[in-house]
Amino acid sequence: MASFDLIRDDLACVEQKLREKWELEYDVLTLAIEHLLSSGGKRIRPALVIYASRLYSPAASPKIIALAAATEMLHTASLVHDDLIDGALLRRGIPTLNATWTPGATILTGDYLFARAADLAAQASNVHLMHRFAETLMVICSGELRQQLSDLPTRMRRDDYYARIYSKTASLFELATEATGILENAPESQVTALREYGRNLGMAFQVADDVLDFVGDEQHLGKPVGSDLRQGLITLPTLCYLEQHPEDELIVRLFRSNEHRSEEAIHQAVSAIRESGAVEAALDEARSFVGRSRSALDQLPAGPARQAMQDLADFTVQRRT
Amino acid sequence: MASFDLIRDDLACVEQKLREKWELEYDVLTLAIEHLLSSGGKRIRPALVIYASRLYSPAASPKIIALAAATEMLHTASLVHDDLIDGALLRRGIPTLNATWTPGATILTGDYLFARAADLAAQASNVHLMHRFAETLMVICSGELRQQLSDLPTRMRRDDYYARIYSKTASLFELATEATGILENAPESQVTALREYGRNLGMAFQVADDVLDFVGDEQHLGKPVGSDLRQGLITLPTLCYLEQHPEDELIVRLFRSNEHRSEEAIHQAVSAIRESGAVEAALDEARSFVGRSRSALDQLPAGPARQAMQDLADFTVQRRT
Repeated sequence: MASFDLIRDDLACVEQKLREKWELEYDVLTLAIEHLLSSGGKRIRPALVIYASRLYSPAASPKIIALAAATEMLHTASLVHDDLIDGALLRRGIPTLNATWTPGATILTGDYLFARAADLAAQASNVHLMHRFAETLMVICSGELRQQLSDLPTRMRRDDYYARIYSKTASLFELATEATGILENAPESQVTALREYGRNLGMAFQVADDVLDFVGDEQHLGKPVGSDLRQGLITLPTLCYLEQHPEDELIVRLFRSNEHRSEEAIHQAVSAIRESGAVEAALDEARSFVGRSRSALDQLPAGPARQAMQDLADFTVQRRT
Repeated sequence: MASFDLIRDDLACVEQKLREKWELEYDVLTLAIEHLLSSGGKRIRPALVIYASRLYSPAASPKIIALAAATEMLHTASLVHDDLIDGALLRRGIPTLNATWTPGATILTGDYLFARAADLAAQASNVHLMHRFAETLMVICSGELRQQLSDLPTRMRRDDYYARIYSKTASLFELATEATGILENAPESQVTALREYGRNLGMAFQVADDVLDFVGDEQHLGKPVGSDLRQGLITLPTLCYLEQHPEDELIVRLFRSNEHRSEEAIHQAVSAIRESGAVEAALDEARSFVGRSRSALDQLPAGPARQAMQDLADFTVQRRT
């Protein structure tokens, strides 16, 4: 992973902020939150906030730290509900909350973390930011809902895929960088460029993530290869494969019914997609998002922070975990 | 129910605000939200906002309407998750969302409504209010969690019951009136009085609700009598009964294990509690909360709005649905 050397101290402040005690918490809830926070997230969203802030200020203000913590808390909250909905028992190799808690307690913990995220965002004391924060949460939830409620032909469309990964990932990356620009009183055109950078980086990041589900190393991933197919989730490598092999029935059958989703069928599908040019085609798309994020960077103040943001974008399509 | 005659037009604006289209919504989500909003809520939280505003302004501003809608949306969101967690199939006689949707879609719809509530609150454009809003959501969620995670001896304590109903109901009533005072730039002492009024009214309202679960009319309630006992929920009438009959094993057994919760045992328990003085003792507590809410009102500007707030408090302990 990218080293975040430039912003190590600020990220330590974010960790502290994320763990701030709240008088109404119960021991068991504190333990659960600590478990969630310590289970190895990359903290890429807080890093985006801190880097973007560093474009304008030599040190991160308390408001910037609160915003950085808010983005990570929002991300954590949505993972709690996602894992419950998907029935996922492991994340990054560590048991999920729903693996040991009742569904009710898991739902409520997710809700509590959403509330904490909103509270952290409110600490940035900026009305426009609160608006964008609420809006982003609406985008994230409605995207997940679309995934739940759409029919197969819809889910097999590229535009549907891009809308899904925008909701799931890019919308929050976009919020992180845009909101930082707002807090730093950056000129309007730079707030727009920050937004563009964040969105395109997020799109690249999610496409790369979806590629890793086919070609990654299970031990590093912390989950088995082919998890998305196993869950009936159609991602870009699969879409590229289907575009190249419109006659292929094996894969479409996989999504049509849970009955056909045997381990053998999954492995066959993973191999077929891996051995086709689909993975490379998907990575090309990711690289093109990275290119757009770099173009946006050109409009921002030069310096070590901008360089780190460029490195982060390049790293996105090279990562292996 | 109280007639809300004085504020009928403003409440109509709130209804409109609650239904404002959002471009990212899907037809199916819009239908679900309409179903939830139209299933007969009393709109007591928006009414509190409008009445409290009327103490200071002759007409409700768009910010007040947004705040009123935010409180109702937050309430609706929490009901969606509560009904799923409790496995409730009816609310006010109408099928719940979880009665027809998957758990995943239900969780996400609740999340979406939380986000919409935050968005409505952000429209009030007041940082302090956003803070209080996020804090209240944390109180609501952590209270529900406590209910899920506490052991039986804890749940049999009065202070635990009062903490639970504060989280569940009174915290949002308190937010509604306090936040209105903040938006109306009321003097500090009056904001405190508004907060006191809201909290005590909310406590009275929830105690009365818990009493109705024993003595209410099934048709008007929209759910069977004894629902709380059936769910293993210990409320004030039960606590009063247990204090009067410390030797009674029937009721404690009911909470100790799901196995003993037969319909016959529930009916026996409901009858025993009804026929004891426990219902009247619980209502006395509700009346004492009403008394405190009326004392708080004395510190607020006199006029028709204050009179309506007083009537609302009195009505709370007289209502039958």
